[in-house]
Amino acid sequence: MRLKVSPLTSYGQPSSLPALEAFAHRCDIVTFDHELVDAALLRRLEADGHVLRPGARAMAIGQDKLFQRREAAALGLPVPPFAVARDAEAVAAFAAAYGWPVVLKARRGGYDGRGVWMANTPAEAAAVLVGAAARGRFLLVEQWVRIEREVAVMVARRPSGDHVAYPVVETVQVGGMLKELIAPAPLPERLATAARSLAERLAAAIDLAGVMALELFVSDGRLLVNELAVRPHNSAHHTIEGAVTSQFENHLRAVLDWPLGSTALRAPAVVTVNVVGRDSGDLWARMPAALRVQEVHVHLYAKTARPGRKLGHVTALGATVDEAHARAQRAAQVLMGGDGTKGDGA
Amino acid sequence: MRLKVSPLTSYGQPSSLPALEAFAHRCDIVTFDHELVDAALLRRLEADGHVLRPGARAMAIGQDKLFQRREAAALGLPVPPFAVARDAEAVAAFAAAYGWPVVLKARRGGYDGRGVWMANTPAEAAAVLVGAAARGRFLLVEQWVRIEREVAVMVARRPSGDHVAYPVVETVQVGGMLKELIAPAPLPERLATAARSLAERLAAAIDLAGVMALELFVSDGRLLVNELAVRPHNSAHHTIEGAVTSQFENHLRAVLDWPLGSTALRAPAVVTVNVVGRDSGDLWARMPAALRVQEVHVHLYAKTARPGRKLGHVTALGATVDEAHARAQRAAQVLMGGDGTKGDGA
Repeated sequence: MRLKVSPLTSYGQPSSLPALEAFAHRCDIVTFDHELVDAALLRRLEADGHVLRPGARAMAIGQDKLFQRREAAALGLPVPPFAVARDAEAVAAFAAAYGWPVVLKARRGGYDGRGVWMANTPAEAAAVLVGAAARGRFLLVEQWVRIEREVAVMVARRPSGDHVAYPVVETVQVGGMLKELIAPAPLPERLATAARSLAERLAAAIDLAGVMALELFVSDGRLLVNELAVRPHNSAHHTIEGAVTSQFENHLRAVLDWPLGSTALRAPAVVTVNVVGRDSGDLWARMPAALRVQEVHVHLYAKTARPGRKLGHVTALGATVDEAHARAQRAAQVLMGGDGTKGDGA
Repeated sequence: MRLKVSPLTSYGQPSSLPALEAFAHRCDIVTFDHELVDAALLRRLEADGHVLRPGARAMAIGQDKLFQRREAAALGLPVPPFAVARDAEAVAAFAAAYGWPVVLKARRGGYDGRGVWMANTPAEAAAVLVGAAARGRFLLVEQWVRIEREVAVMVARRPSGDHVAYPVVETVQVGGMLKELIAPAPLPERLATAARSLAERLAAAIDLAGVMALELFVSDGRLLVNELAVRPHNSAHHTIEGAVTSQFENHLRAVLDWPLGSTALRAPAVVTVNVVGRDSGDLWARMPAALRVQEVHVHLYAKTARPGRKLGHVTALGATVDEAHARAQRAAQVLMGGDGTKGDGA
């Protein structure tokens, strides 16, 4: 079933230049909610005079983790040591300098923990490289860093240069996949301010027009740039109900070069818990029980359940993180087939 | 241009029983966002086993101001004296008992000040009756009451009987049309409690499944039932951002017989100001200036401007009514072509 929410919907392959051109011809401004349109095609559209926001260069950086690392490093931002993992020898040379284990990452297309591997030995690294080569994937190698916490900053920036950053959120990951968002992140003010500043500097450097999520590690008490996503991002889903202006509204304001809206939280604490598929149980049948939890906002994505697939999320506002967390987690657990009484969602 | 926001949209005349039947056959539950489907057709659907929420009887009451008056009077709720305005003699007899002026109202189809006339003399009343008869309209006559304030209560009720009422709002009317919503209404607690109780009693009496707006007059320090709308209503548009659960979400929860959501306001004060067409100026071109007002939520309805037509609304939350009002009014004035500095929107 095709959900059509605009009268001007058109269907086409994002890899087809004629389809992209036909679409762009009908638009004053073209924007994106994913990063899967090849940057070379976007450059063609831009060269033909179409207005893309974000532009082709920012989209290229969003698509490619090597470009992201180089951009951040060129700005002097803190990044883990990295190199192109051309072959096993390159990985071995990198590990000789930085030690094992190392992290191997697909330059493109990874998400939700896919496209990231830890290798403890040269043999493990070689196996990952063989698997990637078979699928035509290029990899990066990075130093493995001890992660105390992962956090993210959403920033919106207009072509005119005005920008706003949302309060830093903690992104609680399980198996490489986002499980919970906690806003504000429990960080010292110094680090929170630094994280927002890093995001704002990167946004300016890539001449962002739209929104961008910067994901960061906290390691040994300092920030390291992890990845960036040049689009509305699941690390800011809590802004739908939890912020004065949602990431989606600020994306559109930014793309239109309109004044950006307040990023303040609507409550002292906002927590989002993802609903992850574990069985084919009927989420809709569980909705009444989930909604018995007061003051939760449930989003279901109308996707078919399969283990590990994100099917929705629950956001709760509260006077404290504990209060918001308890509510969101209880409702999410009920949706995942639990009785809402367990603390760990298991 | 047809805006299609559901993959299951179907088009048909609401006066066509076959079209209604074809639609209802595809639904587990049929609900409404306006009251323009003839109640006799709705009774036919119900008799054929279709589940309507609200049901045909509640919809009939929502459509007909005479039924509303009778229902409220039968419950012992405070209503202005009224009668059927069959002809000029009936109006004269009513006025002999209750005095001039009188208010004449169309039983059906009036809104935004249309379908309501004040008559100061028998001649004026006769002119209104002639005009109505020419258009096949039936009228009520009511005692004219001095209105101190108009207020409204939105209530949601499930088939199981559970119900919730939103805080009472003041509905500031200009020329019979809603200009502003102020939540909470500046009422003594005694009247606010009484207003919610009246709405809850009416909802139970009509066996409401869905949401209902009860509009009330405050006259001589007491409440009088004015009208009711058995659907999401513009007197609760402030709940979209201003309440924990919007009227639309609670309408759907009620229709599905799901637990109802909190009706608490998200801030101490919430104010909505309507954007009313005065010229054909380009609302979209004025958006950047309107959005320079911080923390306002602008809704435009994509309607063609004409004098007196509602084109959108602006909602603002605030620590006080004055603060929220100032913000919402400033943005609405800018959208209406003012400079946002005038106090009266003129």
